[in-house]
This record gives sequence, structure tokens and C-alpha cells, in this order.
Amino acid sequence: MNRTDTVIKVELGARSYPILLGSGLISRGDSYAPFIRSTQVMVVTNETVAALYLRKVKSALKGYEIDTAVLPDGERHKTLASVTGILDRLLQQRFHRDCTVLALGGGVIGDMGGFAAACYQRGVALIQVPTTLLSQVDSSVGGKTGVNHPLGKNMIGAFHQPSGVVIDIDTLTTLPGREFSAGMAEVIKYALIDDREFFHWLWENMDDLMARDRTALCSCIARCCRNKARLIAQDEREYGRRALLNLGHTFGHAIEAAAGYGNVLHGEAVAIGMSMAADMSSHLGLLTEGDARRIRSLLRAAGLPVSPPQGLSRRQVMALMQQDKKVHQGVLRLVLLQGIGEACLDSGFEPGVVEQVVACA
Amino acid sequence: MNRTDTVIKVELGARSYPILLGSGLISRGDSYAPFIRSTQVMVVTNETVAALYLRKVKSALKGYEIDTAVLPDGERHKTLASVTGILDRLLQQRFHRDCTVLALGGGVIGDMGGFAAACYQRGVALIQVPTTLLSQVDSSVGGKTGVNHPLGKNMIGAFHQPSGVVIDIDTLTTLPGREFSAGMAEVIKYALIDDREFFHWLWENMDDLMARDRTALCSCIARCCRNKARLIAQDEREYGRRALLNLGHTFGHAIEAAAGYGNVLHGEAVAIGMSMAADMSSHLGLLTEGDARRIRSLLRAAGLPVSPPQGLSRRQVMALMQQDKKVHQGVLRLVLLQGIGEACLDSGFEPGVVEQVVACA
Repeated sequence: MNRTDTVIKVELGARSYPILLGSGLISRGDSYAPFIRSTQVMVVTNETVAALYLRKVKSALKGYEIDTAVLPDGERHKTLASVTGILDRLLQQRFHRDCTVLALGGGVIGDMGGFAAACYQRGVALIQVPTTLLSQVDSSVGGKTGVNHPLGKNMIGAFHQPSGVVIDIDTLTTLPGREFSAGMAEVIKYALIDDREFFHWLWENMDDLMARDRTALCSCIARCCRNKARLIAQDEREYGRRALLNLGHTFGHAIEAAAGYGNVLHGEAVAIGMSMAADMSSHLGLLTEGDARRIRSLLRAAGLPVSPPQGLSRRQVMALMQQDKKVHQGVLRLVLLQGIGEACLDSGFEPGVVEQVVACA
Repeated sequence: MNRTDTVIKVELGARSYPILLGSGLISRGDSYAPFIRSTQVMVVTNETVAALYLRKVKSALKGYEIDTAVLPDGERHKTLASVTGILDRLLQQRFHRDCTVLALGGGVIGDMGGFAAACYQRGVALIQVPTTLLSQVDSSVGGKTGVNHPLGKNMIGAFHQPSGVVIDIDTLTTLPGREFSAGMAEVIKYALIDDREFFHWLWENMDDLMARDRTALCSCIARCCRNKARLIAQDEREYGRRALLNLGHTFGHAIEAAAGYGNVLHGEAVAIGMSMAADMSSHLGLLTEGDARRIRSLLRAAGLPVSPPQGLSRRQVMALMQQDKKVHQGVLRLVLLQGIGEACLDSGFEPGVVEQVVACA
């Protein structure tokens, strides 16, 4: 471990694990070694990421019995069929219950590699090696895994905590601008949930972040991971406070599905969703109009959209929201804002208010 | 709850749950009510069991929003495709995350209903209503769920503890004789693992049990559930002592797969496997030849086979055993017997001994 590396602990009792954060980690064997139980490692990745990093990971893992499952790139391949392909490969290669799955890529790869690890022989070890900003600050931490179904996003999946998360900041240099911005949506989410100070820090440092300054990025990612780790430690299975992490996601998932997966990036949909949540909060008198405006400004500064693409059907978005996982006993529960850094769960609003916000956007 | 009902608690911290055991429970709404979180209940069953009990369960659940997934009967349908069918149904019917899956049937239904509950929206509530002796004493308790893969049994699955288990002893009256005997294999297993006194009790009461005397059956099933609950409480995820529950299963799974799923019943394969484990233990000087003989006699008294069917390929059985989940770092670990009621994990034997036992059987 280099002096400059950061280690963040996710405290979950017997399922606790560290997040390693630093530069060049992806090419170093000691980043992975503590998390590998036997000699068998299945690297799950996609074609795009494989071309950039697979050779580095493989040479870092010299001496292990490595096999790879390389999937096509894109959210539309996040299906049970793709995960079945990984499971077939694990069985064909006679991987045992003490093997390790290493998910190398963005959120889609992390979700599918993680779900395969969750289901193979009722659960094997998992290392998350997220290579996008979005997966580094969000999806690689917390144990949510799964796939989409034609009738809904992330509807099939499991909670499966990794043994370790390895975040190499250098991978962000190859990330396309649109995807970088999409990751910033989740970054801003952490500020809005419970960290007003971070919101101000983001105002001050947005230029450096967008220029991908390493020092700024390291501080930013570490802060997001710490904030997420704290929420997860309080509520691993999302019975309560962890649900705040869904800020912007109920609107966002519906927009993503209505637009067709891949047309609007997940982070972009979350940005639109957070903007809608801010709007709704201000309609309900929870948030000042000034704060709602500041939120939209910060999202725009990060290169993000704040309203849905043209031609989206309001009725379809509403129907998709009703099928959301956050519906309890038929009642839609949304994460709203009582202030910047003060998210709350709310289900006591008139359904008409939601329609109004969706319609106006 | 009637005075005569038995309640056994499985102690797993936040995931603790009760097993209700008695007569007529299947037709009573209060058997299920404590375990249902909202109004949506998906009953997963098969054609055979549906014809016998679905109407009773449905009328016990009057007032709930009930839907059913009726699968074809048989181990060969225990596939990811069948589970996908259940998940499709849950989504089509717009079941929410607070819904409940009720698995009504034998081990195959419990494993698949349980796996669907584990994966739907990353985990929903599950009630196990086992209707075979085998599933009542074994598979409905402990949270193991999953499906078979062409390359191995139970290779895809999850740990997902139920909210409650409802065992209605009356369902055993409709169970075919061969399946009843198959369940007795798992009953005898509990005696062999760590309950010598129960072995003697089984000697004394085998005639009553085979005649399906209710009092004898109730005592017997309660004892098995208590023994299993104790082992699971010590080791939910099978890192140690819980592995003793696999007595006879490594041999058994290989025999089952080699014979073709469904040709040898799971319980029959376990009986053959326990007989092989006893043989091997006695070859290794762990168990007296007299005790090995007594074990075979009790198995025979329960109407069970003690050697594999004619024409099974020894090479195939050996190859299948090497792919077993109990292989650690390439070394096969077997559950052997140091005595009746004294099972132990062993991997320090010569591989030749295993071949010898498989060959001689």
C-alpha cells in the first residue's frame, strides 16, 4: 500500500470490507491479494474495458488461475441471460465455491459480476474494480447487484457485499465526458442527502473536478464513499435510512425506462430526477425556490440535463413509477428535500403533485 | 395456535423465524398471517400439489391478493428457466417489494420458490409450506435455495431465510411410499450426525413411522427440525459445522446426477451416499463394521436402497464428485462417521479410498 492511498472501511459486522482508493492500484497484485481465497479468479468485464485494462489486471494477478468472461458493452446487455453466461463459464471452468469473481468495469459490469458471484454456489467472493466515476462513488459500494427485466430496472438481483473494492483513480482519464458527467450526478446526490458542506465544496471545486484534477477527484470520491458507507452501515438492507440513496432514482428509473435503456444514461436520468425531486419539494414548501435553483445550477455546471428529453410520455413515466421498488402497500414513497443536505422520505403527498412535476418538467 | 401445535425457533439474530408444526395448519389463515407483510401473496406450487392443497391454502388466505405460479412436477424442472417464469409472473402481476412468496410443495418447489423470493427485487418475504417428509425435515429449514445446472446440482442459488415455516403433518397422508422413504433418509441423517439417542429411538419406532402414525411422526419431525435449527444457528452460511448436514450428499449428488435426475430420488441417493460414507469410515478405521451394518439395516427398514443402481459408471460418479461444492482448493472434503451420532469433516484420506468405496458399492 502506498503512502498516498486511502482506505475506507465499510462497517457491516462479519461482512465488513475496505475500499482502497488511489492511483495505479489496478496494476498491482497487492491490491487484490487480500481478497482472494483460493487460486481461481474469474474476471468479468466488457469489450470496451477489456481493451483498456484487462492486460494490466491479468499481469497483476500472475500466479493465479485466471479466466475471463467478456460481455458486450451497454445497459441493454444487463440481463439474466448475460449473468447465465457468466455462471455457465464458472461451471465449465470448474470453479469451486472458494473462487473469486473480479468485476472490472462500470456499474453494469459490477451489477452483473456481483449477481453472478451472489448466485454461484449460493455465493462466492467478489472484488469490485469500478472504472467509471459513477460506479466508483456509487454502485460498487453497498452490495446491491442485479439485472434489468423488460418490465423494470434492477427488478432481479441480490444483496451481496464484496470482499473488497479497488478504485484506481487513473481509470477516469479514459472515461468519455458524458459518462464522467453522469457520475457527477451521483456525487451531487451525496451532497444533497446529508452533507451541505460538501455541496459548498462542490461549488468551489467543480472546475477542477471537470478538468479531472487528481487531487480534487480523490477527495471527492473518498467523501462520497465515506458518506455511502455510513448510510449502509446504518441500514444494510434498505429498510430505512439507506433509502435516501434513492434520491432522484424513482423519477430517474422511470425516465430511463420510458426513454429506452441507453438513450438516457443512468446518471443523466438521476440528475433529471433530482431536479424533479427539488421542484416537487419546493412545490410542497419543503425547500426554498432559491435552493432548488442552486441545485439545478450545480447539476448544469457538471454538464448534466435538468429536464427530460423531448417526446417522453408523461403517462408512461407515471405508470413506470408505480411499479418502482419503493412502492409500499401500493403507496409511492419518494425521497424529497427539506433543504440542501437534508433528504427525507415522504409518502404523504397528493398523487396529483407528482403528475404535475412530471408534466411541467 | 392449537394447544397441540409445536413451535420450533430457528435462532439467526435478525433473521430468526419459527417453524410451526401440527395437524390441519395448511387450512388455517392464522398459520400464515404473522408472516405476510402486505396484501400480495404469490403461491408457488406444482401441478400435483395444486390438485391436493391449493384450494385449501387459497381459502385460508381469503382477503389477500393471491396469485399462483403452478410449475410442472419433478426435479428435472428445477431450472433457472422455471425460476425466471416465477419472476416474470411476479412482475406481470405488479407484485411489490413487500409481497410474500408462499412455496407450497416438496423440496423442488421450496428451492425454486425460495430462490425466486431471494432474487425478486433483491429479496422478498418467503413462507415455506413443505408437503413432503423430506422437505419438512430438511430443505424447508435453513435458507438454502436454488436450481440445478446441466453441469451440477444446486449450483445456482442463494441463502434466503424464510419468515416462517408451516409444517402440516396431514400432508404426509397423501405422500407416495417411495417419497416417504426418501424423506426417512434425511431423518436418519440427523441421528447419524450428532444424535445417537435419536438413532435408538428410530430403531424402536420405525414400524410406527412407516405406518405414518401421527404422534410418532410429530415427535420425529420436531426432533429433526430442532437438530437442524441448532446446526444452522451455529453456522448459517456453512463455513464449518453446518457442512455436517451434507452427510451422504457428496456421494449422493454424484449418484443422482449420474443416474439422471429423477431416476434415483434425492433421498434414495442420500441413503446410498450415507451407506458409502459408513463403508468408507469403516475402511478408514473410524467406525466399527458393526455400526456400519446397523446403519445399513436401519436404512433398509425405512425402505431405502444402500447401493447404487446397476450400470452406473464409476468414472462418471468420481468426476461429478470432484465438481462438488464441498471441494476446497481442489481437495475433496467428505463428511464421515467416527461413530453413530458423531459425524466429522475429513479431507485427509487417500483419493484411492473414495474410488474403492464407489467401485465396491
